[in-house]
Amino acid sequence: MTQRKIWINATMTGSDAPQRIAVAGGRIEAVGTDLSPEGAEVFDCAGRLVTPAFIDCHTHLVYGGDRTGEFEARLEGADYQQIARAGGGIAASMRATRALDVAGLVAAALPRLDALLAEGTSTVEVKSGYGLDIDTEMRMLRAARRLEELRPVRIRTTWLAAHALPPGYDGTKADYIRDVAIAGLERAHAEGLVDAVDAFCEGIAFSAGEIAPLFARARALGLPVKLHTEQLTRSGGTLLAAEHGALSVDHFEYATVEDVAAIRASGTVAVLLPGAFYMLRETQKPPVSALRAAGVPMALATDCNPGTSPLTSLLLTMNMGAVLYGMNVRECLDGVTVHAARALGLAGETGRVVPGLSADFTIWDVERPAQLVGRLGLNPLHMRIFQGDVTHG
Amino acid sequence: MTQRKIWINATMTGSDAPQRIAVAGGRIEAVGTDLSPEGAEVFDCAGRLVTPAFIDCHTHLVYGGDRTGEFEARLEGADYQQIARAGGGIAASMRATRALDVAGLVAAALPRLDALLAEGTSTVEVKSGYGLDIDTEMRMLRAARRLEELRPVRIRTTWLAAHALPPGYDGTKADYIRDVAIAGLERAHAEGLVDAVDAFCEGIAFSAGEIAPLFARARALGLPVKLHTEQLTRSGGTLLAAEHGALSVDHFEYATVEDVAAIRASGTVAVLLPGAFYMLRETQKPPVSALRAAGVPMALATDCNPGTSPLTSLLLTMNMGAVLYGMNVRECLDGVTVHAARALGLAGETGRVVPGLSADFTIWDVERPAQLVGRLGLNPLHMRIFQGDVTHG
Repeated sequence: MTQRKIWINATMTGSDAPQRIAVAGGRIEAVGTDLSPEGAEVFDCAGRLVTPAFIDCHTHLVYGGDRTGEFEARLEGADYQQIARAGGGIAASMRATRALDVAGLVAAALPRLDALLAEGTSTVEVKSGYGLDIDTEMRMLRAARRLEELRPVRIRTTWLAAHALPPGYDGTKADYIRDVAIAGLERAHAEGLVDAVDAFCEGIAFSAGEIAPLFARARALGLPVKLHTEQLTRSGGTLLAAEHGALSVDHFEYATVEDVAAIRASGTVAVLLPGAFYMLRETQKPPVSALRAAGVPMALATDCNPGTSPLTSLLLTMNMGAVLYGMNVRECLDGVTVHAARALGLAGETGRVVPGLSADFTIWDVERPAQLVGRLGLNPLHMRIFQGDVTHG
Repeated sequence: MTQRKIWINATMTGSDAPQRIAVAGGRIEAVGTDLSPEGAEVFDCAGRLVTPAFIDCHTHLVYGGDRTGEFEARLEGADYQQIARAGGGIAASMRATRALDVAGLVAAALPRLDALLAEGTSTVEVKSGYGLDIDTEMRMLRAARRLEELRPVRIRTTWLAAHALPPGYDGTKADYIRDVAIAGLERAHAEGLVDAVDAFCEGIAFSAGEIAPLFARARALGLPVKLHTEQLTRSGGTLLAAEHGALSVDHFEYATVEDVAAIRASGTVAVLLPGAFYMLRETQKPPVSALRAAGVPMALATDCNPGTSPLTSLLLTMNMGAVLYGMNVRECLDGVTVHAARALGLAGETGRVVPGLSADFTIWDVERPAQLVGRLGLNPLHMRIFQGDVTHG
């Protein structure tokens, strides 16, 4: 049995007195003001703030290549059509990803993962979606699983073959959903590679009707679903997602009051992604006030990807949630902890500092959460604890 | 004499072949493709990108206290008037700064400085301006000078007593300029604490006419001037600054074509500060196209301060220059190197990788500058070299 540990003099949001956190066997045993440190290894937090370790619940962390050349071209005046004609966009990431084996995909992803871990992140969702053929989609998820062996982190994998129709695909979108997204899902699931199933519901990707058979198959396999939807237009994907009890709907800028009511009823989390909103200079914000009024949980995530959100900081993501979306400090912090856990189906495992959950928490050189959300470019991490072990600091 | 060193296989912007950089006595001795490493300590860059070390030419890095509570209050709906009535804003920073001695100011500033250095920054400008009495203003600059002894960094100090009229000041703005800003400048200059003189020209601070005697005195003392101007309104400070051959005009959002022509003629750098623009959700952008067309050098800086720009990353500042202001990659990189050096009167000392200058450069785990500008939250620093010594990596 793992040695008992105790963290003393921890400042925790919502409590007046300094707290103690006792950990045993990698899990939080007790939280309180008067736990005895006897027989335990003691860490003194010296009044520092303790938060649940962060959770990045929406990333495309595993991919090949680099698209900052497109970023540069856009600054020089090129438009999306010109970039696409030059072979850019998702097609460029697809080619670069197909060219890499598992080791190459892992090597490309590690610096991005390490940036997240350096800010105390415990859990990272990783999607496929740049292979757009069965073998490469599966290889992406094998790479994602491998990250969990190489670093002290919890990885959740998401099957996103329905990200785009690959250039030159010989068939309809419905054919692609049947022959690649669903057929591949069955193979990947049989190998234990899939924790959830996602799709991109948008005019430039797939319609709700095209996605419906994929979601039906996912649920028949016992897999939860989630959906990129209402990002650039109001596609109506939210209603499909809610029907299937989706874990989350992601982006959600163009969502309507009907969409908010639907996910309130289905217990679905709204995952907001301000990095893409910022990089694309979008102006349509997600309906934060309506979500707040309805009591729908809001999560925040990096959406880390090579094109629209090359972002690997949840501290910066929280700041953008506040500055760009008007979320308050509490909402931002909950968005990368408890609600992010729920968006991954992990509410009973991580995302809060309460007895019974995995001992995943972070000690910060700050006094209160506003100092995590309100600053730009400073990482005040003092110590990262993952499953009861100190991994950073 | 310091040992000779040579960096080989360096990728440099604007050159096709891998370059070699020879350093001796802390200065760049030669740059070329065929320098002999004989007798030198050799560092292999392995094709990585080398840039001049970054320069942060506008910061308020030294201050006491913290104003993220105001950030939180604004998110909860408080407006500026309510915050000011509650004793917030610049008055809060003034009280907290007055309460600290030099050691306390240094301790508060070091984490912010360290964040800048971790991204390869060689040179940081630090302003006074939160004391608003002579003793505290001088103490702030003593703290700034002390930073240079504690870390491998070049500090340039700026006298900014004319930042605001302190609450409860018994006199007019003209009295304050004469009795505090000018009288204090003379004392601080006599102690060797001042490298340049700055003021805040804005309705809520001082008018160009009120600042004119301060600038006249600065120049009589042989000190260069710079000016916070045209940030929230078109105050007309630029014309005063140009008249005095200012090193820089800073913020510059509301500048007119007349202002651009004036600084073109005076050889003044436009220092753009997108962090404050972002945090304040401003919409009036500085006239980047007009500056570009006129050939006026544009610098970028963090404006690191406790209220409007709690930013300690020049990588993020470059990204904001591109995304928010439409600057291209080359302009962003020049903005934190060669043009930032010029904004501090250091064009002959640092900011370029050319023979004769201080050996201040950074080696990055990227292939091209767009990968520094186009990403968010990733610090790909491989090695930081300051005055010929490797200090990070």
